[in-house]
Amino acid sequence: MSIDLSYRPEVVELVAKTEAFIAEHVLPVENEFHGDITAAGGDDIRRELNAKAREAGVFAPHAPVEFGGLGLDMSDRAPVFEAAGGSTFGPVALHIGAPDEGNVHMLAHIADDRQRQLYLAPLASGEVRSGFAMTEPSPGAGADPNALNTLAVRVDGGWKINGRKRFITGADGAGFFIIMARTSGAAGDRGGATMFLAPADREGISVDRHVHTTDKSMIGGHCEMTFTDVFVPDEDVLGAVDEGYRYAQVRLGPARMTHVMRWMGSAVRAHRVALDYVDQREGFGGRLGDLGMIQQMVADNEIDLAAARSLLVRACWELDQGSHASDATSIAKTFGAEAFTRVVDRSIQMCGGLGVSEDFPLTRLANELRPFRIYDGPSEVHRWAISKRAVGRARKTRTGN
Amino acid sequence: MSIDLSYRPEVVELVAKTEAFIAEHVLPVENEFHGDITAAGGDDIRRELNAKAREAGVFAPHAPVEFGGLGLDMSDRAPVFEAAGGSTFGPVALHIGAPDEGNVHMLAHIADDRQRQLYLAPLASGEVRSGFAMTEPSPGAGADPNALNTLAVRVDGGWKINGRKRFITGADGAGFFIIMARTSGAAGDRGGATMFLAPADREGISVDRHVHTTDKSMIGGHCEMTFTDVFVPDEDVLGAVDEGYRYAQVRLGPARMTHVMRWMGSAVRAHRVALDYVDQREGFGGRLGDLGMIQQMVADNEIDLAAARSLLVRACWELDQGSHASDATSIAKTFGAEAFTRVVDRSIQMCGGLGVSEDFPLTRLANELRPFRIYDGPSEVHRWAISKRAVGRARKTRTGN
Amino acid sequence: MSIDLSYRPEVVELVAKTEAFIAEHVLPVENEFHGDITAAGGDDIRRELNAKAREAGVFAPHAPVEFGGLGLDMSDRAPVFEAAGGSTFGPVALHIGAPDEGNVHMLAHIADDRQRQLYLAPLASGEVRSGFAMTEPSPGAGADPNALNTLAVRVDGGWKINGRKRFITGADGAGFFIIMARTSGAAGDRGGATMFLAPADREGISVDRHVHTTDKSMIGGHCEMTFTDVFVPDEDVLGAVDEGYRYAQVRLGPARMTHVMRWMGSAVRAHRVALDYVDQREGFGGRLGDLGMIQQMVADNEIDLAAARSLLVRACWELDQGSHASDATSIAKTFGAEAFTRVVDRSIQMCGGLGVSEDFPLTRLANELRPFRIYDGPSEVHRWAISKRAVGRARKTRTGN
Amino acid sequence: MSIDLSYRPEVVELVAKTEAFIAEHVLPVENEFHGDITAAGGDDIRRELNAKAREAGVFAPHAPVEFGGLGLDMSDRAPVFEAAGGSTFGPVALHIGAPDEGNVHMLAHIADDRQRQLYLAPLASGEVRSGFAMTEPSPGAGADPNALNTLAVRVDGGWKINGRKRFITGADGAGFFIIMARTSGAAGDRGGATMFLAPADREGISVDRHVHTTDKSMIGGHCEMTFTDVFVPDEDVLGAVDEGYRYAQVRLGPARMTHVMRWMGSAVRAHRVALDYVDQREGFGGRLGDLGMIQQMVADNEIDLAAARSLLVRACWELDQGSHASDATSIAKTFGAEAFTRVVDRSIQMCGGLGVSEDFPLTRLANELRPFRIYDGPSEVHRWAISKRAVGRARKTRTGN
Repeated sequence: MSIDLSYRPEVVELVAKTEAFIAEHVLPVENEFHGDITAAGGDDIRRELNAKAREAGVFAPHAPVEFGGLGLDMSDRAPVFEAAGGSTFGPVALHIGAPDEGNVHMLAHIADDRQRQLYLAPLASGEVRSGFAMTEPSPGAGADPNALNTLAVRVDGGWKINGRKRFITGADGAGFFIIMARTSGAAGDRGGATMFLAPADREGISVDRHVHTTDKSMIGGHCEMTFTDVFVPDEDVLGAVDEGYRYAQVRLGPARMTHVMRWMGSAVRAHRVALDYVDQREGFGGRLGDLGMIQQMVADNEIDLAAARSLLVRACWELDQGSHASDATSIAKTFGAEAFTRVVDRSIQMCGGLGVSEDFPLTRLANELRPFRIYDGPSEVHRWAISKRAVGRARKTRTGN
Repeated sequence: MSIDLSYRPEVVELVAKTEAFIAEHVLPVENEFHGDITAAGGDDIRRELNAKAREAGVFAPHAPVEFGGLGLDMSDRAPVFEAAGGSTFGPVALHIGAPDEGNVHMLAHIADDRQRQLYLAPLASGEVRSGFAMTEPSPGAGADPNALNTLAVRVDGGWKINGRKRFITGADGAGFFIIMARTSGAAGDRGGATMFLAPADREGISVDRHVHTTDKSMIGGHCEMTFTDVFVPDEDVLGAVDEGYRYAQVRLGPARMTHVMRWMGSAVRAHRVALDYVDQREGFGGRLGDLGMIQQMVADNEIDLAAARSLLVRACWELDQGSHASDATSIAKTFGAEAFTRVVDRSIQMCGGLGVSEDFPLTRLANELRPFRIYDGPSEVHRWAISKRAVGRARKTRTGN
Repeated sequence: MSIDLSYRPEVVELVAKTEAFIAEHVLPVENEFHGDITAAGGDDIRRELNAKAREAGVFAPHAPVEFGGLGLDMSDRAPVFEAAGGSTFGPVALHIGAPDEGNVHMLAHIADDRQRQLYLAPLASGEVRSGFAMTEPSPGAGADPNALNTLAVRVDGGWKINGRKRFITGADGAGFFIIMARTSGAAGDRGGATMFLAPADREGISVDRHVHTTDKSMIGGHCEMTFTDVFVPDEDVLGAVDEGYRYAQVRLGPARMTHVMRWMGSAVRAHRVALDYVDQREGFGGRLGDLGMIQQMVADNEIDLAAARSLLVRACWELDQGSHASDATSIAKTFGAEAFTRVVDRSIQMCGGLGVSEDFPLTRLANELRPFRIYDGPSEVHRWAISKRAVGRARKTRTGN
Repeated sequence: MSIDLSYRPEVVELVAKTEAFIAEHVLPVENEFHGDITAAGGDDIRRELNAKAREAGVFAPHAPVEFGGLGLDMSDRAPVFEAAGGSTFGPVALHIGAPDEGNVHMLAHIADDRQRQLYLAPLASGEVRSGFAMTEPSPGAGADPNALNTLAVRVDGGWKINGRKRFITGADGAGFFIIMARTSGAAGDRGGATMFLAPADREGISVDRHVHTTDKSMIGGHCEMTFTDVFVPDEDVLGAVDEGYRYAQVRLGPARMTHVMRWMGSAVRAHRVALDYVDQREGFGGRLGDLGMIQQMVADNEIDLAAARSLLVRACWELDQGSHASDATSIAKTFGAEAFTRVVDRSIQMCGGLGVSEDFPLTRLANELRPFRIYDGPSEVHRWAISKRAVGRARKTRTGN
């Protein structure tokens, strides 16, 4: 027999524990503060929830075992993170939110021993948060990462970094940053980027303002930053010089997939709210759930969720095999992001006037999910990449090169 | 020659004046308060903007001439109201927002002389606002108006009304209400409803709470109300007893179309924000506006807007001919509401990260427009009605009855 | 009052006559031969149906009055041509099919007196058919007309034409051709094209083969042709030298719209077949027409047809005003072509297994309509043009130029 | 580690052999006869291709080992059947087409020893073909199987069957039939059906006519049949009396999935035709494959194919675990059928005029695939079932029953 899609009992159990934890400890807080993590207390509520998660045995299931995590591979993370996504505060509570989760993943792959102790250990334990400073305002690295124009120049004993960044998730309150800067080549070149580690209080690092977006659950916001003559010693170069784009790939594929996992949880939740509503509400001579147009929306939600989950399982398995899985992760991300907004939109529609009211969490979830079709590469950029590879493979099959 | 789609010069001029007024006096206020009319001052800002609109010659263009309006028919309202929709505060500023605009329209058709002086005159002039108390919480009249179960019983000299209402737009601060109540038949019957007029301070009328929704531009909110032994004298029955559903039809078709007009303005505005962005922003080796996937979104916006506008023109012309135009207004409303959310969604996507930020007005417009697929009859209810009529016509053609 | 959407009584009457003619004389023939005009007898059946149409007073309603037509403008053609489209043989029967209808339209605008007598008169009366030889195989003028590379070179007393053409509708059996050839500039240039008239038996003109496509109702097929040293005297140059692209615009906008009219008729027919089916067929405890998912398809068909018709009315009115109506015709064509395939597809789905069988005409209609998203400019080319103009207008508004 | 999505080397090798066999022996025949299996010779060409398939080691890979097959489980069938679907004649060539493949599957599960020798053995070897007589004309069992009204009444030593059937695939030329008939209950009841085996030449069995549909690759067509006093002895009852609906479930889930596999092959083929075209054809100043709107279509095809494949893998795994997999197979079938028609439609659009011509196989593939949204349960019926189960699960979670 070839295929196996079953999860180990430990994973199944962890999913159940996570669901219970979210329902008991996290959802009530989210609902009280209408999904606004800042209003709920920011890092204070984070530490409180982290402590409870640790107690419940569900904290940081992805982190390396040596740092107190459970060391789950990508395949096993999928159902657990989806369960955590059952509340928009779940990822913060379990310490598996962006960007920390992706940064833990990348540091575990690339950091040297000293960096692991200094940066990874406190990050994995939740002692500090982190930022990943890659995206830039126009005309820098936005949807097109090759346009990178934050510069790092060689100085005695290290590098000096200058540039502006935007949409740096979690920047406000982060303990340290991973900074992507150009060390060779010109803006537009594919190559010549390097990653640097720097504590947040390093001179020249400034968090200028929050870019307020429709999602409200990411602690530390999405910020604009300036790096002015920031000195980074050689020992804080992450991996090798000029290898930044390659490392970014190590981070991007998995980070895309954990986004899909968490946001799948939001979409599933919206769908369940609608299911309960249409099963109980009467109208037009019967239950709403017995009306054909409602049934079509229910079924389309089920189909979208099933397809997104299947594509996610595929991409995670490829990543676990050691592949970059560029195609599979682009496909799962693009389909997932679009499917989730469809699912929440249908759920709103099924609930009628209450669906667009704050009595229900649905519009809040819609506003959390909408940006996902843009974050981590807009759908259009992923489609461009998927298409280029598909045409390239066809040409290779046809012509041999 | 058969067809004429041109507007009279007076209308063209009024559109231009309205556009200028919105840009100069209304948009700045909306932007300052992020589109929240309550935060902007509620009725205070309304009166201030109304005064300016009067001065600019654009106030209440739909109101009867005898009450100081311009008496525009539905066809001519279309381009003017669309221009007013260029700001989400525009309808309030011109006093052409829901529910007042529809109430003016209905009272002008149905009210007797005394009622015209007492209710219509101060409403048309903007002295007071009004509410239309029809929708009820489950199991009452929601998407299915026949489920009406607010009751009016005959008492000496008039009627006594009891019941609960929900989503009563503009209720908080309204000067009077038009109350829809059952005067015969049981819940579920098509018939037996009557409309009543009552000042807001009449004993037994209570505005209990705001149902907070994603749209923030409608003054007085969407409220839950209780009517407890509310006495309405016979002289305040609007039209004839038991004719409420028929009068509601007089109101609903035109009210649907003015919604389309105003929200068309929002969609056009979102599209223009995106057009300016993609024309100026560089990426992937050129202007965004030269990329095929962006061009597809631009073109789809143009097509959606053109189709919605054409359907609106058709429906308005039918209404002006004296028809109920049930089909044409259902089609224009359903297509329009769905098209506008598509247009705003594409506009967001074209603007990338800024599109989901408060730096741009787009997510605000998305939240204003989303409920329109539910308000004034969910798309599903309109589709059900459109289909029933289409099948009925086909049967009649086939069988002769 | 601004807007008028009513048709004159003469037009209304002509529509009724056309519907009756189609039902009595044309549909039976189409159904007998499963929609294959060649199998039905080609030009023999055409002449027979033309005679009957003349007798019924519905022949060539678009042709100039001086040539025996009714001289309808574009607005009035719309409902008449739609009625003719009620059978796929209708356009041939009324002599309003492509390319003859468009050629009549263009010749009436551009031809000189001699050419009117020699070419337009016999074409308008149906004595002969014609071809419009513009499209070329790759790398010539396909979706991109600027790639034109059929060449006409100056010779004594006229021009000599060489080149290959493809998808020349009606070529097999045509009496004469309008040939588009490059008279200046290189392939890729916007300009330098000229139109030439030539009898089909002129030396060097060869109809090489039919390109068999899914549509079967166009008489004379879609052919590949070769022009080898074809001599055209100066007097058969149509209009001025190097003005071919401009004249093509005269033809293309209206020709697009008459395509929409005719194919609208096919879509309406498919919808009616489905309406009759779902109204009569029982299943799942009731009539199919009472099931919500069926009602959704019925309503979506109604909406699509209404929107397409409204966009068509708009575009025709603009054309009648003397505008090129590039935007309005591109929008109506693109929306219409896509809407019609959706309508037929839903109609098939509603009829279940019979829908995909030859017992019903639906798959035949689907195969007739599918190419319309490609013919007369693929949707993608129209979207590209619509987008370019929209961005250009926005820039002009913003910057003043 | 939890998940494994890799195929065993034997399966990978069989896929490669199947692809090679299709390319060398099957596609040329299909192309010569434009995909019409009847025109290609019907059972004669089937036997010829079967012999070649046996020689190539790719014949009947799903059949039980004891009958000369390879005994592949559902998971392993998926990539092999997809490869076979690379030609529309592939399933006939490998003897894995409907309905024989599903009948082999069901007989292998249910038939007793005598029936295995008499019916399954010659069917598995390709000596004879078979029919599955379940679907009926209105008002019988169509999309709604409970409406079954072919009756079997008890007679001495067996049963006597009367009724009409429609869309019986492969009936013309079949060696025997599996007949579904009501043995208890009334039309509309869920239950009381029994399956019967009968040789095609049994008295009273009549194949009346072919219902001609758009698909042309299924040998023996889709036929209307009459059963008049057909006697079936007790020993030819398949399984137990009154258990027909339960057995149908055994057949339907897997049969749906093998349809998805085969038709996936058609969709992949169409996509490859388009990929090769857009990679080579020039236009608009570059290769078509570099234009954004084309890239979007390419990417959407890739996404649709990947999602359909992932859902299929999931459903097959569930079936292999012994589940009925009602949800997973309904979802994979519904999504797959709709995705495949989208994929072929986009492929046509990418190829322009040639796409709708017989020069390319695309419209042929579109006509093969269109019925799949209706065959094996229309999308609407699957959505209804998916929705009912989803609402039911939600209620159970909420209320405990």
